[in-house]
Amino acid sequence: MAEHLSQSELDYPFKLLEYFNGFRVSKMIFSACELGVFDLLLKSQDALSAQHVAQELGTSMDGMERLLDALVGIEILEVETAQGTALYSSTDVANLYLAKGSAKSLHDMIIYRSQTVYPLWNNLVDAIRSGRNQYEKTFGLPSGHFFQAIYRSEEEMLKFMGIMSCHWVLDGHDVVTAFDLSRFQKVVDLGGCTGALANEMARAYPASSVTVFDLPQVVEAAQKHFKQEDSGVTFQSGDFFSDEIPGADLYVLARVIHDWPEEKCLALLKKVYETCKPGEFPRNQGHPHTLADFSAIFCN
Amino acid sequence: MAEHLSQSELDYPFKLLEYFNGFRVSKMIFSACELGVFDLLLKSQDALSAQHVAQELGTSMDGMERLLDALVGIEILEVETAQGTALYSSTDVANLYLAKGSAKSLHDMIIYRSQTVYPLWNNLVDAIRSGRNQYEKTFGLPSGHFFQAIYRSEEEMLKFMGIMSCHWVLDGHDVVTAFDLSRFQKVVDLGGCTGALANEMARAYPASSVTVFDLPQVVEAAQKHFKQEDSGVTFQSGDFFSDEIPGADLYVLARVIHDWPEEKCLALLKKVYETCKPGEFPRNQGHPHTLADFSAIFCN
Repeated sequence: MAEHLSQSELDYPFKLLEYFNGFRVSKMIFSACELGVFDLLLKSQDALSAQHVAQELGTSMDGMERLLDALVGIEILEVETAQGTALYSSTDVANLYLAKGSAKSLHDMIIYRSQTVYPLWNNLVDAIRSGRNQYEKTFGLPSGHFFQAIYRSEEEMLKFMGIMSCHWVLDGHDVVTAFDLSRFQKVVDLGGCTGALANEMARAYPASSVTVFDLPQVVEAAQKHFKQEDSGVTFQSGDFFSDEIPGADLYVLARVIHDWPEEKCLALLKKVYETCKPGEFPRNQGHPHTLADFSAIFCN
Repeated sequence: MAEHLSQSELDYPFKLLEYFNGFRVSKMIFSACELGVFDLLLKSQDALSAQHVAQELGTSMDGMERLLDALVGIEILEVETAQGTALYSSTDVANLYLAKGSAKSLHDMIIYRSQTVYPLWNNLVDAIRSGRNQYEKTFGLPSGHFFQAIYRSEEEMLKFMGIMSCHWVLDGHDVVTAFDLSRFQKVVDLGGCTGALANEMARAYPASSVTVFDLPQVVEAAQKHFKQEDSGVTFQSGDFFSDEIPGADLYVLARVIHDWPEEKCLALLKKVYETCKPGEFPRNQGHPHTLADFSAIFCN
């Protein structure tokens, strides 16, 4: 693979220059989301001029025109010219994933990346030097473990929960149906956050009972601020490190293991192993292992 | 075009997610440059372990290992495993464009993007709202015109000159040979900075005399800090807005017009038009225009 890039890039490094500009492409899309460009274009029946968009969203004309043209360049928007005026409209992709109200909206993920992750990555050199997260240098926050920073206020916690939810909008159904998990009667999603993955699980396996286990403030926020479908998912509060975890036939640890150091992960996995109900994994799927060996799905 | 992206992306927005991660790819490469990863790998005869690289460059092992693996993922580095240890080596592309000492090194461009442009783009929303550059918000610098900020110290000016030079390493030869310019005996590169493009011009057209015209501090720094090839390029100091510009048969305005507001550009182009020596553009190339109409190359 590297040979391939290497050879084609030696004369003129197109791909490399694309990589150098990656941050501009990210920020163009992020900024258009933050400014409400995709929402305005979705709402509008007609294609709009840059001047119209700038006026509606309270921005400079020059800045908005450049942004819109750049988004046309990467095929996120479309443009046509009528009587000498460029008129911009949205694409199906932008309407589905970038506008705020859409069922598959990634808006929350984008805002988090733009306002939190992008500035953190400005200090990547320091992160690599020190091997530590950069919440302190970037935002002046204590950075013992990054969940301290992420959950520093309800507002910040909700933002983080929003992006966790976004991920499962994209991947959730595919993940829970990659294997037939219908034999597992009781499923517990440890650190299940808003319940987005649990809902996918409950929808795919209506005969199973699915429980989200997460910290009390997360469970409270999930039920208060995130739409819970009528899928029968239940919530239980607790700390999966210090408390007992509920018994289950199947544990889900999705985007959890990568957050913690080795010793914490081992303690958590040991607890899962010991709590998991024994049983055999269905042989007709060719898995001769006992259920306990197969009890956790890792989606890191 | 937009239809194409739109249709293929509706089921799963691979390209969109790639755009969302663009800033991470940029910063991975930038950070490896800043830390000296590509220089170390170029210098080394053998492939190196993450531990070795981390020790040599004074970074954490964990951070360096993740960085190296990520660079393998985007085909900038290669990896092989020997006796259970991953050993990393560079690619031809990285050696040619990313290592510091190479003839085609883009190192200066990368450092500037990483330390100046990336943080500026963190405030893109404000830039679009206000229509103004973000030097003040980003770096606490006065931002009347961004050259005030760029040239705020010799160190910063040299960084900026470095990236200007880098651009012509990539594009210079192609730009000056896109048309046959051999008939133009006297060429003046207005705002020619380090002379990188002027050198390409002088090499391609050895019978022409080529002069770089730029601000006194820029001319001084160009001659002091940037290698001037034995191409016969001369330097002349002055301000192309307030001073007379030297007479010529051909003026080069490369990456200049896009920096200034309309009225300044019109004043500059008027001055070029009035100063340019009259003559006919060679008819055998199918250009019936007088030389004065064709006197400036725009490479914005």
